[in-house]
Amino acid sequence: MRFSTISSSPELIAAAAEPTGVSGETAQLFQFHRGQDVFFMLMLVAFLMMFIRRFEWGVALTTLLVLAVSWPLYLIGYTEILGNELDIDAVILGVFASITLVIAIGVFLGHLSTIHFILASVLFVPAYMANEWFLFGFLDGVLDSGGSILVHMFAAYWGWGVILGLRNRRVSEVPQATSVHSVSFVWLASMLLFVLWPSFVTALLPPEAIIPGMINTYLALTASVLITYVLLWALKRTIDPLVYTYAILAGGVAIGASVDLASPLQSWIIGLLGGAASTLCFVYVHDWLCRKTGVLDTMGVHNLHGVPGILGGLVPLVLFGAPLDQLWAVLGTLVIGLVTGVVAGLILRLFPKPDRMLDDAESFPLDDVRATEVP
Amino acid sequence: MRFSTISSSPELIAAAAEPTGVSGETAQLFQFHRGQDVFFMLMLVAFLMMFIRRFEWGVALTTLLVLAVSWPLYLIGYTEILGNELDIDAVILGVFASITLVIAIGVFLGHLSTIHFILASVLFVPAYMANEWFLFGFLDGVLDSGGSILVHMFAAYWGWGVILGLRNRRVSEVPQATSVHSVSFVWLASMLLFVLWPSFVTALLPPEAIIPGMINTYLALTASVLITYVLLWALKRTIDPLVYTYAILAGGVAIGASVDLASPLQSWIIGLLGGAASTLCFVYVHDWLCRKTGVLDTMGVHNLHGVPGILGGLVPLVLFGAPLDQLWAVLGTLVIGLVTGVVAGLILRLFPKPDRMLDDAESFPLDDVRATEVP
Amino acid sequence: MRFSTISSSPELIAAAAEPTGVSGETAQLFQFHRGQDVFFMLMLVAFLMMFIRRFEWGVALTTLLVLAVSWPLYLIGYTEILGNELDIDAVILGVFASITLVIAIGVFLGHLSTIHFILASVLFVPAYMANEWFLFGFLDGVLDSGGSILVHMFAAYWGWGVILGLRNRRVSEVPQATSVHSVSFVWLASMLLFVLWPSFVTALLPPEAIIPGMINTYLALTASVLITYVLLWALKRTIDPLVYTYAILAGGVAIGASVDLASPLQSWIIGLLGGAASTLCFVYVHDWLCRKTGVLDTMGVHNLHGVPGILGGLVPLVLFGAPLDQLWAVLGTLVIGLVTGVVAGLILRLFPKPDRMLDDAESFPLDDVRATEVP
Repeated sequence: MRFSTISSSPELIAAAAEPTGVSGETAQLFQFHRGQDVFFMLMLVAFLMMFIRRFEWGVALTTLLVLAVSWPLYLIGYTEILGNELDIDAVILGVFASITLVIAIGVFLGHLSTIHFILASVLFVPAYMANEWFLFGFLDGVLDSGGSILVHMFAAYWGWGVILGLRNRRVSEVPQATSVHSVSFVWLASMLLFVLWPSFVTALLPPEAIIPGMINTYLALTASVLITYVLLWALKRTIDPLVYTYAILAGGVAIGASVDLASPLQSWIIGLLGGAASTLCFVYVHDWLCRKTGVLDTMGVHNLHGVPGILGGLVPLVLFGAPLDQLWAVLGTLVIGLVTGVVAGLILRLFPKPDRMLDDAESFPLDDVRATEVP
Repeated sequence: MRFSTISSSPELIAAAAEPTGVSGETAQLFQFHRGQDVFFMLMLVAFLMMFIRRFEWGVALTTLLVLAVSWPLYLIGYTEILGNELDIDAVILGVFASITLVIAIGVFLGHLSTIHFILASVLFVPAYMANEWFLFGFLDGVLDSGGSILVHMFAAYWGWGVILGLRNRRVSEVPQATSVHSVSFVWLASMLLFVLWPSFVTALLPPEAIIPGMINTYLALTASVLITYVLLWALKRTIDPLVYTYAILAGGVAIGASVDLASPLQSWIIGLLGGAASTLCFVYVHDWLCRKTGVLDTMGVHNLHGVPGILGGLVPLVLFGAPLDQLWAVLGTLVIGLVTGVVAGLILRLFPKPDRMLDDAESFPLDDVRATEVP
Repeated sequence: MRFSTISSSPELIAAAAEPTGVSGETAQLFQFHRGQDVFFMLMLVAFLMMFIRRFEWGVALTTLLVLAVSWPLYLIGYTEILGNELDIDAVILGVFASITLVIAIGVFLGHLSTIHFILASVLFVPAYMANEWFLFGFLDGVLDSGGSILVHMFAAYWGWGVILGLRNRRVSEVPQATSVHSVSFVWLASMLLFVLWPSFVTALLPPEAIIPGMINTYLALTASVLITYVLLWALKRTIDPLVYTYAILAGGVAIGASVDLASPLQSWIIGLLGGAASTLCFVYVHDWLCRKTGVLDTMGVHNLHGVPGILGGLVPLVLFGAPLDQLWAVLGTLVIGLVTGVVAGLILRLFPKPDRMLDDAESFPLDDVRATEVP
């Protein structure tokens, strides 16, 4: 069987039926660049998570390792097991799986020894594919072209499942300092993720839906850039760069499920709601949730991908008459993500914890470099 | 009415008339990537301006805010008021407006509180659209496919208008230090702007003019890379990285108006002249001009965008038999930019000046981070 | 005469013969973006080489200068002397030459005064074009679509020829420190080179070979990401970031010659071998070779481009029944590279050595900046 994450909205089916000026081969070559952009975004997510001053290289190393394990594994499952062709759609569905994993490890980065992230990747892929089948194979007419549910929600809740199963309390006690330039890399990553976001949400759309999707995505992102600033200024009179650089991307998360359905104005409002929800989660929910659960969401993934992902997943139900399956998609992804995550966390718990957590010294020789650092 | 910034050179009109192998839909999808590249360049302009050691994050934040305000505003004006369609041309013309604003704020970055840049953006968009109408609606046959006049000249002179109206003398007294890596980010931005420049100047060209435009642009840029080095070495025996990383892009500024008209050799020479003009402005004009006027052009925008923009705008008059309207385009943009800029500056002057200028502390909590900094 | 680096494999000739859905103009516009990506990669190579803490800006400056000299020179030779058209193929073949030079200077960066790299570029271009003619004009049926031989091997051995001719022993004695963020820029460059690699190896392939080439390239790279980590951990129990960030790209180097011939599984294995070969060279060969020869390969180019290039060049001989000319291509490139490199090195030896080697102070005024540095 073949998954299709292409929206099944009536308009688009009609559009796809009409003869379009773009031939199949041409459309596939366009996907080459959008697919490549998703790989680009995957790498940028690593730099978005590079703000902890003494834990920068480890984030990059771990990101490369989980990509190197998960992408080929997904392709094997997609072609050998599910019997699909190894084409550009496979490339893109595979890198969707890998970027979901890279987002997910943001929840437990620094909790494990680097080498155990290889095992985590092996545990992730079947869980992700099961949820993908649930959304587009089991349920019917789920709208999620841009991955609000498939990518962002699953990443957040699978990752949270892992820390709940793993229960590494010691990592919460590790002090986290930042440096000016460790945060400047985060600004760079966040701003380029903004730029590339349309490639991600339109990667699997038919040609005629790509330009409208691009416009909707940029409008949603500009709205979160604005609301995040206004809210932080109104609430705190200061801008925490580690909230701002994250929350401005929530518009891209929230527009995912309706990128090919919303009007430009609707997209802007969806982005506004996504940015507001993410900002409020960072400011009011994050510490409380980590304290209540006793576990640490290292990068605050729940605030950027979890809640805005749920919001985005529910939008088509409210605005675009999606079938009730859309609700089951959101609830089911939450449950499947948490359950398979907890199982992975319990397995990973069998392995010894690293001596030094949230610290590059766990993998790298750093004495010389740190000699050049301000204490 | 619909603006057209597509060159009206006879050759191209002929070319456009001939049947080309690229269908309309296909050509539009190509514009998706070039348009995205212009957003990429807009973000890179922020990093080009990130050299002031204690004023890095503020540049990124301000860039995001002015994009978030100006791009949607332009789209509203372009579609609702001027009655054009919301298509890929709108996306690109809109991001042209926004990147012009991001270049323009380089003149007065650090002069205002971050929040007042939102007002500055609201004041900018109508002024920019008025000048766009003047160039392509009022005047006839103006050649400026790559935005030497529309983007670079207007950015420089509108920004200068603002500082002349604002007259914030205190900002001139703030000491500016750099750090090795704050300048390394500038190198990164400059080198990637070089790479993406062809997407900017060919964004609105017909398919058959894109490859020749790419060749001309890279040739112009390689010429400024060379002449800037030779001049700085000859004049100063040392390379100021904050002159070099800027002036090497002047070839891209200067080729803008004739990217679809010049021969490869002509393009190289135009780039040589642009780079030389920019270098000489940085070395000999900048301090004198700021002293004479008593205001600070924070990023030296006049040296990279102002003078090379004028040069580029006049090239078609000299080499390609442009009508006299080309001269009026250059002069008119200078006047419209300065006048509307001064008005904006006078309005912005009504608001209190920030306590700390050219300093991230104006927006961000920095005590922890700066504790890790060398004094 | 016109070079063709497009693989002459029977399958592809057949494929090219069949009618494809992509028109010539459309295919050329696709090349616009892949060509631009190669310029992007060229700039990233500079950041890959930016790890020496007090020698960062100089690497960027030198990269820009050698590009600015070599690219136009190649175009002149390609069009004026060889009589080819100045089209997108010229752009790409030209930037292949320039990126080869940027890789090659990695061998002797810091050995020369910046200004002498201009002369080095003038000496490089004819040597590179002679080897290009040898491979695709003199020999017959050489398979090297992705430049394992043309780019990577020639870069390594021409560069080594230069240091052998130059014999600047003093540079070996200069201490090299790194800083956390000088190495973070290397991570960024390495990760983005991974992302863009398919554009490089498919830049000259016909449309129908691009997607398979993309899949093969990413598979080869994921394999080297994995094997490099496993080997370094097994052999050293620690990851040297300046080995890791380089060796993970060896899969892209090794797949070059067979990107359009290998199966996905074969590609993964080729990447595994490339990554392993590169890692072992960095760990066991580099110091020994520099000691034996008494010269310094500043960036360890031989370990990433030399040995994996040879490996990649020989693969089609072993797996895809390439004619014996494939062997002559590898041996001939090694000899032509070394000989023309030695000649260049002997000429460059006639000029005075810089007072300060591997140091930005050779070109830039740094007193203020270094005042903000930890000693």
